Amino acid sequence: MIRFNSDYTEGAHPKILRRLIETNEAQTDGYGADEYCERARKLIRDACADPSVDVHFLAGGTQTNLTLITAALRPHQSVLSADSGHIFSHETGAIEAAGHKCETLPTESGKIRAADIAAKLESHRRDEAFEHSVQPKLIYLSQPTEYGTLYSLSELTQIRKICDQYGLILYVDGARLSYALTSSRNDIDLATLTRLADAFYIGGTKAGLLFGEALILRNPLLTPDFRYIQKQRGGLLAKGRLLGVQFEALFSDRLFFEIGAHANAAADRIRTRLKEMGVRFLVDSPTNQLFPIFPDRMIAELRKNFAVSYIQRVNETESCIRICTHGGTKNADADALLSAIETLL
Amino acid sequence: MIRFNSDYTEGAHPKILRRLIETNEAQTDGYGADEYCERARKLIRDACADPSVDVHFLAGGTQTNLTLITAALRPHQSVLSADSGHIFSHETGAIEAAGHKCETLPTESGKIRAADIAAKLESHRRDEAFEHSVQPKLIYLSQPTEYGTLYSLSELTQIRKICDQYGLILYVDGARLSYALTSSRNDIDLATLTRLADAFYIGGTKAGLLFGEALILRNPLLTPDFRYIQKQRGGLLAKGRLLGVQFEALFSDRLFFEIGAHANAAADRIRTRLKEMGVRFLVDSPTNQLFPIFPDRMIAELRKNFAVSYIQRVNETESCIRICTHGGTKNADADALLSAIETLL
Amino acid sequence: MIRFNSDYTEGAHPKILRRLIETNEAQTDGYGADEYCERARKLIRDACADPSVDVHFLAGGTQTNLTLITAALRPHQSVLSADSGHIFSHETGAIEAAGHKCETLPTESGKIRAADIAAKLESHRRDEAFEHSVQPKLIYLSQPTEYGTLYSLSELTQIRKICDQYGLILYVDGARLSYALTSSRNDIDLATLTRLADAFYIGGTKAGLLFGEALILRNPLLTPDFRYIQKQRGGLLAKGRLLGVQFEALFSDRLFFEIGAHANAAADRIRTRLKEMGVRFLVDSPTNQLFPIFPDRMIAELRKNFAVSYIQRVNETESCIRICTHGGTKNADADALLSAIETLL
Amino acid sequence: MIRFNSDYTEGAHPKILRRLIETNEAQTDGYGADEYCERARKLIRDACADPSVDVHFLAGGTQTNLTLITAALRPHQSVLSADSGHIFSHETGAIEAAGHKCETLPTESGKIRAADIAAKLESHRRDEAFEHSVQPKLIYLSQPTEYGTLYSLSELTQIRKICDQYGLILYVDGARLSYALTSSRNDIDLATLTRLADAFYIGGTKAGLLFGEALILRNPLLTPDFRYIQKQRGGLLAKGRLLGVQFEALFSDRLFFEIGAHANAAADRIRTRLKEMGVRFLVDSPTNQLFPIFPDRMIAELRKNFAVSYIQRVNETESCIRICTHGGTKNADADALLSAIETLL
Repeated sequence: MIRFNSDYTEGAHPKILRRLIETNEAQTDGYGADEYCERARKLIRDACADPSVDVHFLAGGTQTNLTLITAALRPHQSVLSADSGHIFSHETGAIEAAGHKCETLPTESGKIRAADIAAKLESHRRDEAFEHSVQPKLIYLSQPTEYGTLYSLSELTQIRKICDQYGLILYVDGARLSYALTSSRNDIDLATLTRLADAFYIGGTKAGLLFGEALILRNPLLTPDFRYIQKQRGGLLAKGRLLGVQFEALFSDRLFFEIGAHANAAADRIRTRLKEMGVRFLVDSPTNQLFPIFPDRMIAELRKNFAVSYIQRVNETESCIRICTHGGTKNADADALLSAIETLL
Repeated sequence: MIRFNSDYTEGAHPKILRRLIETNEAQTDGYGADEYCERARKLIRDACADPSVDVHFLAGGTQTNLTLITAALRPHQSVLSADSGHIFSHETGAIEAAGHKCETLPTESGKIRAADIAAKLESHRRDEAFEHSVQPKLIYLSQPTEYGTLYSLSELTQIRKICDQYGLILYVDGARLSYALTSSRNDIDLATLTRLADAFYIGGTKAGLLFGEALILRNPLLTPDFRYIQKQRGGLLAKGRLLGVQFEALFSDRLFFEIGAHANAAADRIRTRLKEMGVRFLVDSPTNQLFPIFPDRMIAELRKNFAVSYIQRVNETESCIRICTHGGTKNADADALLSAIETLL
Repeated sequence: MIRFNSDYTEGAHPKILRRLIETNEAQTDGYGADEYCERARKLIRDACADPSVDVHFLAGGTQTNLTLITAALRPHQSVLSADSGHIFSHETGAIEAAGHKCETLPTESGKIRAADIAAKLESHRRDEAFEHSVQPKLIYLSQPTEYGTLYSLSELTQIRKICDQYGLILYVDGARLSYALTSSRNDIDLATLTRLADAFYIGGTKAGLLFGEALILRNPLLTPDFRYIQKQRGGLLAKGRLLGVQFEALFSDRLFFEIGAHANAAADRIRTRLKEMGVRFLVDSPTNQLFPIFPDRMIAELRKNFAVSYIQRVNETESCIRICTHGGTKNADADALLSAIETLL
Repeated sequence: MIRFNSDYTEGAHPKILRRLIETNEAQTDGYGADEYCERARKLIRDACADPSVDVHFLAGGTQTNLTLITAALRPHQSVLSADSGHIFSHETGAIEAAGHKCETLPTESGKIRAADIAAKLESHRRDEAFEHSVQPKLIYLSQPTEYGTLYSLSELTQIRKICDQYGLILYVDGARLSYALTSSRNDIDLATLTRLADAFYIGGTKAGLLFGEALILRNPLLTPDFRYIQKQRGGLLAKGRLLGVQFEALFSDRLFFEIGAHANAAADRIRTRLKEMGVRFLVDSPTNQLFPIFPDRMIAELRKNFAVSYIQRVNETESCIRICTHGGTKNADADALLSAIETLL
């Protein structure tokens, strides 16, 4: 079985693993108060071009999302998200379990629009019984989105403007940020993202770490007492140095970008060949996730040797699947996949 | 200002108030452990034709909904509701604040359909990552709906069947149940509702009480320790006898039905005349809420002397408003409203 | 059965009931946006000698406590309370259900001490792993306490000072405030309490209303969006005018103080006679709750005709009970109780 | 700086690390549905001598505790714990944040007693207003305790008996279980613990893993839908295989016991020498945590070169510190610590 069903099918990038081995016997304090975490924070601040941001390390994405949102909102405040947003549909109601409603906005290929945020806020303000509905306060979006698409600088700038106008918090889920930053179609670099978002996280689990996410708090209103809440929600790792060691390695020698670029190149290779074969796509995604449409019978055959994710039915005889590449994807595996598809088509 | 903006603009029905006066100096135990509550429970059990149901009294509708749902669900379970459902849109995220996601189903005039529930459940079961989304467990619907429409016996029976098939809890919000039960188009009586629902509440606040709702638990799985949770959520009234006294009066001499019939007759009077004037309606509702469409300028004029609720814009020059009648609505007031409308049209 | 087991055994004071009758047919808006609530707020602001306080009306005490605390705290912050505090031991974990830990302080006759608050805060600050424990933020105390005792002006001023020093919120549960304000040993008037507390509530349920509490928010940091949270927790009454009507009557012609004085006089009458009979008390309480100690066999006999609360075992043969008076306590009933006790002793 | 301040100051045991390296490039499914996890579960079931237990892997202890307790309790139910219990005092109110009150029991050297549990339950049942306080439902204890002490088989059997009698869930926090199982004074083996507890966890973080805990659910009432809740609380690791790989190694060749025995031997070496020096201990703990008492000035000197935890003041001039050993503690480091102490005394 060759796996293209997610971007976390393997262990760590060899350079990450090497650093874990090298530092294994060093003794440190726990809970992120160690020198590796400190150096990793410094490297990340440098990459964000903002020495004032707060950087916290957590073990996984759901945990990061729920901890940030718990820390940011008062009880009556809600999150606005795409209905395809990860927190809305794939985290088992973690945000609601923390007491907050997730409200959805209409989307286009997984992206929300500034105008729809403004319309929602205007509607809430004009409502005669506004206190009988939740108060929209935090905008959640992913870069890239669940459909692998990218917000452009212009789109994100417009969303920032609406957030400023209505006093909203802009939070960006960057589980796959490495793939966004290294996409040929991207025009938002890390420094720009830092400037536009109030908070965001840099995904490590999907970018070559064993596990780990780095949460960046740029808005100082979000920082007080964050670690209390991180501990309360089970997100403060005892051997926190593991996250420091890994992120220090990830942000040394541009490894983070190297991993993203590798995955995108592999995805490009597959996308180009599929297009040559005449395959249609559900979404035109410029990052490491591809959403080709195939006949159902072919999908069943393909899945005997290749793990891919089933996404949705497209019509009576065809469905969309997802093919994911990652920092360790081998050309040989990609070619094996393409051969199998070509044969089955 | 004559008020048609809600069905709770006045105090209590005179017969309810009289009983509160008569019993005022009697001494009782607190928290619902008094003889008035006991007698009211007996009368309600009789009206439901089921001597085994559990009956609890609470002060208001939001509190009743959130307490029942809190008691019924485990943390990962969700509620399915119409997107116009009161808990989804008009209770400030009370269900989410209790930790549970409200998921919406497509609706027609405020009603959900058995087939859509089944489709949602099938979709959840077929999802390869089903544990990454919430587990639908409780069906919430209102009789009548927020749009004043009614589920037919056939529709509710189909929903019950789906609930049995998938192990779901059927909970009916009866804030305006008196208006449903006495509508000329209704074919679900109280005994039938009791048999079909796992739990429901009989609205008192909108049926002539100062305040108060009676929650009926028919499914014995919902009853253990309910009062602990009622107390925990602030829903156990110290002078609980107030609710007992009022519900005892409401279910004596068919007052509950008398009040509903009065309101429906007043609504019929208004509906008939408006139709004669050629007024269009957003929804064809057979209970005490009417949703006529008027030119915006006319609405502004009308609201100078009559309180009505603004519902939504219908087109560039017209909007829908809501006119509510209740157990104390006077013919003279209804006629004054109709005259004003006739003049303004 | 003559009842001395609580101060909410009867309906409303006649003057309160009369106003409910007089206003019953008036039409108003819902949810506290009516003229009665507005006038009641004005009267309460005058009584507090502070025109800037926010006043909200809620149906019951548990609901008031949980709503205020929910609105005031961030997720990692805790409440400090006496272990006899109502929220700690008699509200079924309502505060914990809202996500916050209640931490206890040592007490003397139900009162907490400024020095113990300071010690707790110092201990938290000095803890090397302070983020691994909750952050004390809100001081909860009752005036009078659960044991009927009173904080003196000097004691409450010291607590205020500690709150200022450590940035704490001081919240006073005034379920029985009418009995405190009219006790002969009280030296904290309503204006002084308003000045010292960040928030407190004036109990109506135990002071002659059918039901209802008035929450006073003096600290402006507590006021934003309070009504959203009140609605979310089920605490916004549809016919909110019922609370306005009652509180307007309660704060007219000093009725609030008249009711408290009546109850205290009745308690004084009972206390004096019991002392003359040589009865010992668990606590020396100067308000409407008395805690006499009697032989167990005598208590069993007494309870055949008089409802009193069992408090705790004192030694092998004796226990403490609680006798409560209220605004409607009749001298004849008090004398009947005293005769019965005298006979049984 | 040589560290004795916790048992998680280093990375992984070499054998654990080696397996992570060997398996790094294998491709697997995510979220624990991989062959490593499956084999680890099998090994753990064998070690527990119960093929029917459910085994789940989580990243850390707080997360494990809060997820199990969230899954096990209804909203009004509480946890009984020692006041020194980790969930009560060192997890930032994680249990309360999940809505449940932690109630404390009196303790002796960190251990709770069956008789005190029974007394608490009897008191709750006899309370006339029992629904106004939380319902004790889950017993939380640690083996070994926070003070390194051990429950004997007789003590734990008595607690089990009380749990059966009152319908309580017995949950054992085994963060340091490896040190308990290999203590010379232990008489509860893994099979016995499995039989007595409804659920417990086997700590990996403090037993040589990079991170990870294995939660054992023996009572089948605790198992339905557990993974939904694990995901919801952020406790389902994407690369779940990391936990499987590590636990498979830990339960191969008795490594788990080897690590515990090594730490205990190191602690014995230190304890014996300290006793020979005449040092007093706060608690007589037979596992890897030692609680010696030293003059304050000496502690300050010692901490310049050795990291130890400050526990509490003992008298005006002396305090208790904690010395922790672990699976990687070197004799040379222990001897250096002992020399330093001897010199400073």
